[in-house]
Amino acid sequence: MASAGESFFEGAEKLLEVWFEFDDDSLESSLRSIDRKVWEDLLKVVKCEIISRTADEDMDAYVLSESSMFVTKDRFILKTCGTTTLLYAVKPLIKLVKEKCRLKQILDIFYSRKNFSRPDLQIGMHRNFSDEVSHLDKQFRNGAAYSLGRINQDCWYLYTLDNAGVERPDQTFELLMWDMCREKMRVFTKDVSENGLDATKRSGICDIIPGAKIDEFLFEPCGYSMNGLLPGGYYITIHVTPEEEFSYVSFESNVPRESYDELVKKVLEVFRPGKFLMTIFANKASVAKDCHKEINDAESLQGYVRQDHQFCIFKNYNLTYTMYSRPIL
Amino acid sequence: MASAGESFFEGAEKLLEVWFEFDDDSLESSLRSIDRKVWEDLLKVVKCEIISRTADEDMDAYVLSESSMFVTKDRFILKTCGTTTLLYAVKPLIKLVKEKCRLKQILDIFYSRKNFSRPDLQIGMHRNFSDEVSHLDKQFRNGAAYSLGRINQDCWYLYTLDNAGVERPDQTFELLMWDMCREKMRVFTKDVSENGLDATKRSGICDIIPGAKIDEFLFEPCGYSMNGLLPGGYYITIHVTPEEEFSYVSFESNVPRESYDELVKKVLEVFRPGKFLMTIFANKASVAKDCHKEINDAESLQGYVRQDHQFCIFKNYNLTYTMYSRPIL
Repeated sequence: MASAGESFFEGAEKLLEVWFEFDDDSLESSLRSIDRKVWEDLLKVVKCEIISRTADEDMDAYVLSESSMFVTKDRFILKTCGTTTLLYAVKPLIKLVKEKCRLKQILDIFYSRKNFSRPDLQIGMHRNFSDEVSHLDKQFRNGAAYSLGRINQDCWYLYTLDNAGVERPDQTFELLMWDMCREKMRVFTKDVSENGLDATKRSGICDIIPGAKIDEFLFEPCGYSMNGLLPGGYYITIHVTPEEEFSYVSFESNVPRESYDELVKKVLEVFRPGKFLMTIFANKASVAKDCHKEINDAESLQGYVRQDHQFCIFKNYNLTYTMYSRPIL
Repeated sequence: MASAGESFFEGAEKLLEVWFEFDDDSLESSLRSIDRKVWEDLLKVVKCEIISRTADEDMDAYVLSESSMFVTKDRFILKTCGTTTLLYAVKPLIKLVKEKCRLKQILDIFYSRKNFSRPDLQIGMHRNFSDEVSHLDKQFRNGAAYSLGRINQDCWYLYTLDNAGVERPDQTFELLMWDMCREKMRVFTKDVSENGLDATKRSGICDIIPGAKIDEFLFEPCGYSMNGLLPGGYYITIHVTPEEEFSYVSFESNVPRESYDELVKKVLEVFRPGKFLMTIFANKASVAKDCHKEINDAESLQGYVRQDHQFCIFKNYNLTYTMYSRPIL
């Protein structure tokens, strides 16, 4: 995802998730009725483009030049790294959904990101979370902005709506990893792997959640993106920035788990980060709604030491934020 | 605490708590051996002065022109409102303790404050939490900065050290209240109360924690400050800014409680805020260490609705932050 000439690439993604409610159940009342051309135009605003598309009964999944996009009937997810300008697309997104579909209301919004390594290289409002918040506040009433973790070290920002939100079970699990194992990262270069599929197999990504329909891409000369689709409307998405000077990997999924322990273990084995942060969102109807309890009690995880742990109760969602680092021996 | 001619007064305090460890148990190895004159000089840096002093076996308590100061053998607490410049005193404080006492190390530091109503009226670094953090980061390794609550609405900032910290039981309970009941605030004016003692009685403050040795002051034409000392090294401190346009009250105490429910009830009855935030710090040895559990489960408190709830685990302390507002009928 970084080209050879660049001295730095910001792996940390901007992540937007929007839940829509429509007037009826007609064909037009679905985001999936929107033409690819319309999405392509929207992505121009963000400064990225579609590389590949896969789909199943429940969603369309796109691998982008900078990360991923997922479109279901009523949920839109856009995750973009580098110096993309994701939040500039929020207003156009809502406008196009109003035009193309029978929009009743926006049920919920989640915009989140880790603090950037080089905020100075970002464009416009993305240099600064408070500018991003001001931009979103102009479009939404009831927007609530938070920072979790240490503002002066590693932290994670969130903007969401103080709404009743999504009623059906929903959960999002993220592992954002950095200071990666050099050896593990070599797989995600053209020197070692032939193509995306080869990297998926060699890395062990194919075994993290078996049975997923995977669409992946290995960038030239290095960098990797994958989307995985699972029956029932579940997705996985992984993005790898392997360069040692700014290595970064993200794992995200909405698979429901009462405990994410096993999944964490598998992801850490594949990537071996020096540090990582874990966020888990779970609404009241989710099987994951109590998984913060075991995390509250655990001062270490798979050999990593907990640096920070915060638990938040929102109107409809519980959120845990935990940051871990490999102990210095 | 506001004079008649001012159109605005910032009631929200800056609060600094520093724990020191000394080389030995000699008389000089105590903050209480430091002369009043030295404290007075330090307070000049902060732009406030001593109004009154009281003391017991465990501590010296000072009512200041802007809030309070408490000095025990090894703990220093300074709480100042208005446009005082508290953090400018951190370096001089450490310098004077090194000079006067046999300082071994700084065990822990807590700097906290609510977001200001008018940050633009603050002086220098106090306009901005990130500037305050930069200032503290120059003096301490392992400083960790957090914001709890909504950055774009009501929030509370904290800077602390990622240290093993204080071993003996320690807890701090704070209620920061605003949008106060107009009727309740009248007691804290010279129109209604003769002096501090009169206001303490009329308001019901004397009944919040009975048995305290109270030192209070009623400002001209309005405003109130009190320090209360309890056997065993416990204190209470209350500060009232009664003006309707910017009403604000703070309650702080280190009394240990397994549950703070009863105390909250009493404080709310005395002041009837429209909104308030509650913070509870409790270290591993404190009886209050599990009190977050009942707060996690309570979506309302004494008729107030919970707006935000966050729970943090630090190396040695648990912290809960909860913000409540009166339901709009």
